[in-house]
Formats: sequence, structure tokens, C-alpha cells
Amino acid sequence: MKKFNVCLVGATGLVGREILHFLEDFPINELKLFASENSLGKTVTFKGKDIPLQSLKNFSFDNEEIAFFAAGSKISKEYIPIICQNKRTIVIDSSSYFRMNKEVPLVIPEINKSALQNHQRLIASPNCTTTIMLMALYPLHLEFKIKRIIASTYQAASGGGKKLMDKLEEDSLDYLVHKRTNPNNPYGFNLYLHDSELGKDRYNQEEIKMESETQKILGDSSIKVSATCVRVPVMRAHSISINVEFEKKPDLERAYHLLKEFENVQIMESFLDNRFATPLDAQNKREILISRLRYDRSCPYSLELWAVGDQLLKGAAWNAFQIAKEFLT
Amino acid sequence: MKKFNVCLVGATGLVGREILHFLEDFPINELKLFASENSLGKTVTFKGKDIPLQSLKNFSFDNEEIAFFAAGSKISKEYIPIICQNKRTIVIDSSSYFRMNKEVPLVIPEINKSALQNHQRLIASPNCTTTIMLMALYPLHLEFKIKRIIASTYQAASGGGKKLMDKLEEDSLDYLVHKRTNPNNPYGFNLYLHDSELGKDRYNQEEIKMESETQKILGDSSIKVSATCVRVPVMRAHSISINVEFEKKPDLERAYHLLKEFENVQIMESFLDNRFATPLDAQNKREILISRLRYDRSCPYSLELWAVGDQLLKGAAWNAFQIAKEFLT
Repeated sequence: MKKFNVCLVGATGLVGREILHFLEDFPINELKLFASENSLGKTVTFKGKDIPLQSLKNFSFDNEEIAFFAAGSKISKEYIPIICQNKRTIVIDSSSYFRMNKEVPLVIPEINKSALQNHQRLIASPNCTTTIMLMALYPLHLEFKIKRIIASTYQAASGGGKKLMDKLEEDSLDYLVHKRTNPNNPYGFNLYLHDSELGKDRYNQEEIKMESETQKILGDSSIKVSATCVRVPVMRAHSISINVEFEKKPDLERAYHLLKEFENVQIMESFLDNRFATPLDAQNKREILISRLRYDRSCPYSLELWAVGDQLLKGAAWNAFQIAKEFLT
Repeated sequence: MKKFNVCLVGATGLVGREILHFLEDFPINELKLFASENSLGKTVTFKGKDIPLQSLKNFSFDNEEIAFFAAGSKISKEYIPIICQNKRTIVIDSSSYFRMNKEVPLVIPEINKSALQNHQRLIASPNCTTTIMLMALYPLHLEFKIKRIIASTYQAASGGGKKLMDKLEEDSLDYLVHKRTNPNNPYGFNLYLHDSELGKDRYNQEEIKMESETQKILGDSSIKVSATCVRVPVMRAHSISINVEFEKKPDLERAYHLLKEFENVQIMESFLDNRFATPLDAQNKREILISRLRYDRSCPYSLELWAVGDQLLKGAAWNAFQIAKEFLT
């Protein structure tokens, strides 16, 4: 089996570390790891070997075959166009920067693997919340066709990186132990509307991505999405309350069947003890968990459901890794 | 001014303690406090005086003029019918037991004070989440007429009483300090679907209340509500993400104006620093805070908004107290 020269940019970040973990099962010839300036000189252990962290500056990707970018939009914007000039390296970008670019496939392998056929060596991995939502909706879309989605999210701290997880810990300890509240946007035992930039129509960027990326991935610009994105005091795994209206009247039993058959989706419902999927259940799992699928009592064309997924895995690292695996065959 | 003989049942509970606080501004002749058996012998301080906690058993309400019930459905079910026989005591019940009874007005004073006209001496105070939602929607309903509501809630621990707040603290400390996770439905840094009893249509009782109580309070059984109720790791104050469809096409500027003019509602939006209402902002406030009012990009007849309120105050104690004040004039 062919082995690849693989690069990972953002190797010390939350997503990068998960990608590194998955790479243990990838046919690698040589692995190069990149991180920000303040990590230089340090090493990261991979399969028992210490690999030095390098700087992107002045590094030539000419001999690299697969590069994972997990260092945010700014780094992707600066370096990916340079790499693409070598016409050799396949770049899999987890940032949002190139996602809506018409020449860049935006791929969830379970859904639109076929979009990879026309790639120009740069493939984008979608927004974490969008990915979790679409994994839950795609099997239903195939049969009933989505018309409109109304979603409210419950997003974990890890979506904002290690820094936000630390803030949640500190603010929570402040409350529990020191009996005080951080005066600066307290996060402990508190929640807040996602603070990505607000657009003219008063939706924020996270909410807008949930519409634009859904339309691109499902290849249907008529699908409407109205989302409200909220950051909750949970460490890891995003939850979404989804109301979805279809063109065709949905059948609940059939919907259950479709979800059960779909790969990497798992229905988790225990009606007997009133126990459904929680973020802690989804943590470290590659599957998206679905609960409380039901007819919407307010509209015969709609269903309600609850989806939970580890946004660092299927929402980011695992999806990027799945894309890379498509290039093995 | 006339002074009243007032009783408070459930005086040591979270809601009861808040009612007691408000009663400091009520014309009281004599105040009697009731609590469960294990509180007997203890006293509660009110305006500098120690008042003994009594048992409801064998107590005659014949000389009582106003009785607040804040001890849950079981106690209300058992004692209120007996009290009502005396044809004297006005009972204000915060429990859900009598809310849907046709002879019992279900009242949010800012909305349907007029329902008090036909009371039979028993008045119910609505579900906390429903109250917060309707305070945000009623001024819009008057002008545009509500057709359908899709709501996802972010409900605080205090809605489940002191016991649930303690569990949240313990489970959070377990995670932060002892680095372990409670194997029994962990609540620390986790969230879960509201665990009230599930109905046949897979909605739970909390969600069903949001529809039935809305219809009763607004006097319109054609209004449809599909809710998903979620318990989040927040101590106090419920948040709701609301999508509301109207009969009449809403105007955003007019909607802002209507909310601004409505009593006990406050718009809290700081677009400049992307900072909107949080549970900690609403804590200990009587007002309902509204943020992110916007046109629903998926439907021209709908608006999206975010409402936060202290469910122990406007969602319970403050609303019950407001009802009592209606009997002063």
C-alpha cells in the first residue's frame, strides 16, 4: 500500500491533536507537524517517536502529499494559496476560509463524497454544528426533501478552543469555591449567544454558516435555515434542537428506519427511564446521537429531533480524516 | 388600608422564600407559614420577627384571607379543595395541578388580568417557562396575532428545586476538583432533555404545558406550540430561543417599539460588543430580558427572538405576588 508524506498544521490545537490520534491508522511515509511560534522547540509524541514542531514560515510543501489545516482561518488564508501552487499537495482545511469558494468541495463523506470528483487539491471540512445537524437530517432529506430548518444550538466550550475551556473551568471554580462571579462575561453556570460577528440581518456568522453550508453540501440553494447559536457551559460535544419541515409529509416510523440504517448515526432513546442523548454521552464518539424524534404537533410536514455530536470528532477532526481516507483508494 | 390574614404554604422552598421576600411590601394582619414535617419546630424571620413553621394537617383556613401555595402539585391537590370549601380564602397556586381546570383562571397580570373577574377564589400562576415566553410574545401577539411558536428552552437547575441545584454543584465539583464524573445522570458540564413525563406523542409534560397554558392564557386554542425543553447547567434564570409565526406579516421596527412599551419587559442588546441577555443578567430581576429580535430569514411571517427571565421571580413568586396585589384594590 502506498504511504504518504503527511503534514498537520495546528498540531497542538484541540482539533489537531484529534487528527494526530486518527493518523495512527494512516499509511504515513513521513509526518511533519506545524504549530505557532511559541511551540517551536517542543516535540509531540506520535507512535512512540518524538516529532519536532515546525514553523510554516519558509517551509516548502513541494514534497508533501496530504496536508491537514487545523489552525484557523487566518493561517489557512495565508498559506493554503501558496501550497496550492505546487499542484501536488492535497489540502484538507478545517477552517471556514475556503468553504464557500465555488472551486472548493465542502464535504461530509457520508453525504456528498461525490463532490470530491472535481477537486482542485483543496477540500474544505464543514462547520462543526452544520456537520452534526446534516448527519441527522440527510437520511430524512433523501426521502422527504428538506424545505426549512429551524435550529437552536447548545454549543460546547471546546468549539472555542482550549482557551475557552480554561475560562469555563476558572469561572466555574470562581463560583463554586471562591463564591464570586467573573465580572467580564462570566461563563461559569451561564450561557450566551454565540459571539461570532453579526451580519446586517442580525444573524451571526455561525448561524449564517448553518444555512450557506447546508445549501452547498446538499446542493440545494432553496433550503432555508434559521438558526440561533448558543454557547452553553459544557466542555465538549454540541447539541442541537432541530425542527425540520419537508416537501413531502414525513412518516415517523420510516424516519426512524432511515436514521437507523444511516452510517455513523445512532438513535439513543430510553423512554422507560426518560433518558436521552447528552453531550457527555457523545463525547469521544464518532457517531452522531439522535433522540426525541417526533411529529411536530404544530405542522404535519415537520419533524422535531435532538442531535448531539462530538464537534471535535465528527464536527472536525474525524470528518477531515475521513476525507483524507478517500484519497487512499 | 385593609390588612389581610396571609398564609404561605411551602415557605422554605425556593419559590416560597421569594414570595416571603415580596410579602414585606404587602398589608398583612397576620402571617402564617407552612412547611413539610421535617421543618416543624423551626422558625423563619420575617420583618425582624421569628415566625414558626406550621403543619397543614388539621389547620383550619377559615380565618385566612389569602393563601399562597408553593409546595408542588401533590400538596395543592390535597389541601386546596378543602380550603375552597370555606368560601372565604383566596388561594393563589403556583403548582400545575389546577391550571387547566376551566373554573380556575390562569393569570399573568400584564396579559390577562381580566380573567380574574370570574374567579371562584382559586387562581393559578402559570408554568415558569410559559410565563417568560408569553411576556416576550404578548405585545407582538396583540398586533400581529400568533399562529405558531417553535421554542427551545435552556432551563436552570433552580426550576428543579434546591435538590437539583445541589446536584449541579456536586457534579461540577466532582469534575473540576476530583476529576471524576457522576455515573448517575451527570449534570456537571452536561445538559439533558427535561425529564418530565412523556406523553403519547413523545412530547414531555413541560413541553405540553407550553402549548396548553399558552392557549388558555391567550384565550385562543388555535395557537400551536412545539417546544423542546432542555435542562442546562445554569443555576438560575431560564432562556428561550423562540421562533414565532404570525397571521399578519410582522414589522421589525414596530415589534421593537411594542416590546419597549410593554411593562416588565426590557430589551437588552449591545451590538457593538456582541453582548446579549444571559441567565446571570436576568437573575434576581423581575423583568424579562429580550435580545436578538430579528426577521426569520426562512419565513416572512415569522420573527426570531431570545428571552431570558428569572423563573423563580416572574416565572413563579413575583407573578403569584402580582396576582395577590390585584385583590388589594
